[in-house]
Amino acid sequence: MKPLRIAFATLPALAACSPTGKSSIDRPNIIFFLIDDNGWVDSQVAYGEEVYPYNLRYDTPNMLRLAEKGVIMTSAYACPLSTPTRTALMTGMNAAHERITTYGALVRDTPTDAAGGTTGIINDNPEDIFARSDWNWNGLNPGDTVIDHALQATPLPRILKESGYFTIHVGKAHWAPAGTPGASPYNMGFAVNVAGSNSGYPRSYLSEENFGNTKDLWQGNAVMNMTEYYQSGTHLTDALTKEALKTLEYPIAEGIPFYLYLSHYGTHTPIQPDMRFYEKYRARGMDDGQARYASMCEGIDRSLGDLMDFLERKGVADNTVIFLYADNGGHSIDGRKGGIPHTQNTPLREGKGSVYEGGIREPLLVYWPGKTVGGMRINTPVGPEDFFPTILEMAGIQDYTTRQKTDGESFARLVTDGSVFAEKALKEGRVTGQKEANRLTIPQEVSGLDPQRPIVSHMPHQWRIEDQDEIDFMSAVRCGDWKLVYRMHAYQDRTKALELYNIREDIGEKYNVAAQHPEIVARLAKVLGDRLRSWNASMPIVRATGKPVPWPDEI
Amino acid sequence: MKPLRIAFATLPALAACSPTGKSSIDRPNIIFFLIDDNGWVDSQVAYGEEVYPYNLRYDTPNMLRLAEKGVIMTSAYACPLSTPTRTALMTGMNAAHERITTYGALVRDTPTDAAGGTTGIINDNPEDIFARSDWNWNGLNPGDTVIDHALQATPLPRILKESGYFTIHVGKAHWAPAGTPGASPYNMGFAVNVAGSNSGYPRSYLSEENFGNTKDLWQGNAVMNMTEYYQSGTHLTDALTKEALKTLEYPIAEGIPFYLYLSHYGTHTPIQPDMRFYEKYRARGMDDGQARYASMCEGIDRSLGDLMDFLERKGVADNTVIFLYADNGGHSIDGRKGGIPHTQNTPLREGKGSVYEGGIREPLLVYWPGKTVGGMRINTPVGPEDFFPTILEMAGIQDYTTRQKTDGESFARLVTDGSVFAEKALKEGRVTGQKEANRLTIPQEVSGLDPQRPIVSHMPHQWRIEDQDEIDFMSAVRCGDWKLVYRMHAYQDRTKALELYNIREDIGEKYNVAAQHPEIVARLAKVLGDRLRSWNASMPIVRATGKPVPWPDEI
Repeated sequence: MKPLRIAFATLPALAACSPTGKSSIDRPNIIFFLIDDNGWVDSQVAYGEEVYPYNLRYDTPNMLRLAEKGVIMTSAYACPLSTPTRTALMTGMNAAHERITTYGALVRDTPTDAAGGTTGIINDNPEDIFARSDWNWNGLNPGDTVIDHALQATPLPRILKESGYFTIHVGKAHWAPAGTPGASPYNMGFAVNVAGSNSGYPRSYLSEENFGNTKDLWQGNAVMNMTEYYQSGTHLTDALTKEALKTLEYPIAEGIPFYLYLSHYGTHTPIQPDMRFYEKYRARGMDDGQARYASMCEGIDRSLGDLMDFLERKGVADNTVIFLYADNGGHSIDGRKGGIPHTQNTPLREGKGSVYEGGIREPLLVYWPGKTVGGMRINTPVGPEDFFPTILEMAGIQDYTTRQKTDGESFARLVTDGSVFAEKALKEGRVTGQKEANRLTIPQEVSGLDPQRPIVSHMPHQWRIEDQDEIDFMSAVRCGDWKLVYRMHAYQDRTKALELYNIREDIGEKYNVAAQHPEIVARLAKVLGDRLRSWNASMPIVRATGKPVPWPDEI
Repeated sequence: MKPLRIAFATLPALAACSPTGKSSIDRPNIIFFLIDDNGWVDSQVAYGEEVYPYNLRYDTPNMLRLAEKGVIMTSAYACPLSTPTRTALMTGMNAAHERITTYGALVRDTPTDAAGGTTGIINDNPEDIFARSDWNWNGLNPGDTVIDHALQATPLPRILKESGYFTIHVGKAHWAPAGTPGASPYNMGFAVNVAGSNSGYPRSYLSEENFGNTKDLWQGNAVMNMTEYYQSGTHLTDALTKEALKTLEYPIAEGIPFYLYLSHYGTHTPIQPDMRFYEKYRARGMDDGQARYASMCEGIDRSLGDLMDFLERKGVADNTVIFLYADNGGHSIDGRKGGIPHTQNTPLREGKGSVYEGGIREPLLVYWPGKTVGGMRINTPVGPEDFFPTILEMAGIQDYTTRQKTDGESFARLVTDGSVFAEKALKEGRVTGQKEANRLTIPQEVSGLDPQRPIVSHMPHQWRIEDQDEIDFMSAVRCGDWKLVYRMHAYQDRTKALELYNIREDIGEKYNVAAQHPEIVARLAKVLGDRLRSWNASMPIVRATGKPVPWPDEI
């Protein structure tokens, strides 16, 4: 890599020269508030064209508060699973391009597809029609030494740190397995790490169980760095928040711009109650699982509120960008969080693991003080790879080099100029309600982003040991209102393999209109095929032929 | 607490305003390199008046290298056990004043004296003549909320951080149990923490055992934050060093002065080999235990060397103070590190746990570039409470407030002006060899420190479940050449309870000369009694009377 230069070439790589405790250079602080396994309808912020029943289940006043200040991105996407989204956030690459397309194991050289990965048990059943594809199961490698089955790339926090940002990691990391540099947030360019490791979920959220740090519970996902809170009655979500606030004291006191990646373990399984809120939801008639999950959602909301309060108390709220985002759709393959399996993201189809909307459509709020018009709704789709250039643009870092070729496009102008455009439309009466606001198109000349650009989701694996018909071996692309879904299992029958949905009119993906629009199917299949080919994307291997499953435009 | 003011009152609380990457204010970086359970003779640096056999056992070229640059403190003391030294370093108080006088348990409300503390099993045998005294078994509490049996105090790193230092903790913390703020280095004022917790030793040093992070090994002392090194063949000492170097990248790049507290778990038990060096010592004829320990000592030395090399590469070596110190004497109650129990600190008597010299006399090197005269030997005794004011003086912080009343005195002038004085004596031929150099007295008018001032060591507990005659229930004071030892078990017989040694002539404490010098015994007993009374020091309770053991000047 060449040395970095930042945009303000005449300035030292140093932000803090003023005795006021604030940066004298107009570089905002940036907070990336990431929720795990949190669905699109799991808050009071109604991202859809209407308020859905799930939006009424959880009290999330602080998310509403943030939504009033920032923009509501109604069509934000993530990958169907955690590690791909998290690595894409670090690299600015599409997960298919990274060849990191399902979750990572705790230990090295352990592909997790076809299940059991964290324990090293691989189910590669010869009766299955597909054999495992080749992919980067050793995750993201930020180091200089090549690691087999790992993607070597320059991570975003390193660029931020080298440009003078104080970079802080709190919570879940999950980019790479033990024994590799990607297991450590320090190697990603964070100056501080609390609790981040190879682990993808917490053994326990409960301080009564020492967050998994007991002989009986320990199994590699016990949460680190939380000793202070053992037996204290503090839910992990709250403990991580308290730690995050501590780590902010230093850069705020010194007037150094900070990047805080507050990556909550919540609301991933295990579904364990946040007792600050649990009884309230029971009293509303929820069953135990529903109330546990609801309490976890409100715990996350309280974390956001505590953080916003803290920024205000410290006098830095007006110079701090906040992103709120989730890494994949809500968990819905069983009843652990209450409700009927495969329905918990209604109106969206399916959930975590799937390329149907329930698995990939995510909450996203973006607040850039003084730049975003509060409460505006923006419909242009964005994906996980887009945060990398967006954050660098917000930080004023224009000139940097990366080992990888990035895929993302900045949506900084989309949230600033785009929200001004939306406000104007509102004032001029061209938009009168939530549905119309969600359907407003921000033109490319305003945002710099083509509203029709493809958003590619790729999951060429079996997620769990049991077959999951609406999850395993699927790929999809959205272009504007249209979405093509490629069900690889059916690759021998084009009419079953390629589904087409009009997402605007059919957000639940109930009506496959492929037969009615063969030309759109062909166009989108070509778009998806071109992308996947250009990225050398991983594809499952057909056992009968020993060859990869065909690209979607070749079936 | 009042707000802090730093010495340079007209400057902002901010060190880095220069584009050169170096601080424009002459505040040195400070590294506190702390070794665990490392004895006075466990390196090639001969702190004594002669080179002892143990000094020839271990290859420590980097300690020699540091000793050539800095001063060799021949009479540095620690507490007999880990937690008291470590808390004294944070508070500037004598451990007896802190009422933290033996090691702390993993869990709250668990006195460790009379053994088994980490598991919560307390042996308070009614057949013992003493019952447990009251002491602060919940350790150091840096928080604002009172905790029962914990010392509330303002920790040194917080003062440093609030004065603009970037404060980094790497390694062993061990100030307080789980569930209290003292378990977290962040609450002590560190901006960064790697691996620090409530734990006092590592479950394993071996990456092959994931540093204790396996189901079979896990028992509360598994080391956190080392996931990157699992199964990599990296010894914990080396892994912590690598992490420490990573954390230094940020402040060095930004030109912010740093305070690095690199607190190695080594050379505490378990005695597990550092394979970079183990075979070499086997080839020299050492048995397995000896070679393991030797390899751990050299591992620590290599860590120091890697750190010094790094500072030189980064161009900050000339502005970085280095302290090398150990928290208590070498472990000697069994043969785990080879050799015959109770002899492994020869010529010193006893080892870890004891107030005899083997338990409390420690390696100490201090290098202050441009201020210390390299290789000079300084004989004035210093104790763990003296580092607090010394470090603040070196950092230029003169005006600060603490919740606690500190006891320590700065030895900054002792190492600077004192080493100039020693060099002059050498040049003038008044000193010609190691023995004379060790006997040179630095006058108080040069150092600011009375060479005769008392150094108090207090261990009013049973350390382990088995009785330890030369360790349990003892107290001592050194004043100049004389040392009084109070064996509390014998409190009913003054001739057995009070021992007097001339440390200069009898470093092995073989010749109790109390009978020959009753007036010195009386004087030192009064000094020790006065100190302990003024601190309201903890004393064991005599079961027969229900009253504390008498003070040493009252028997």
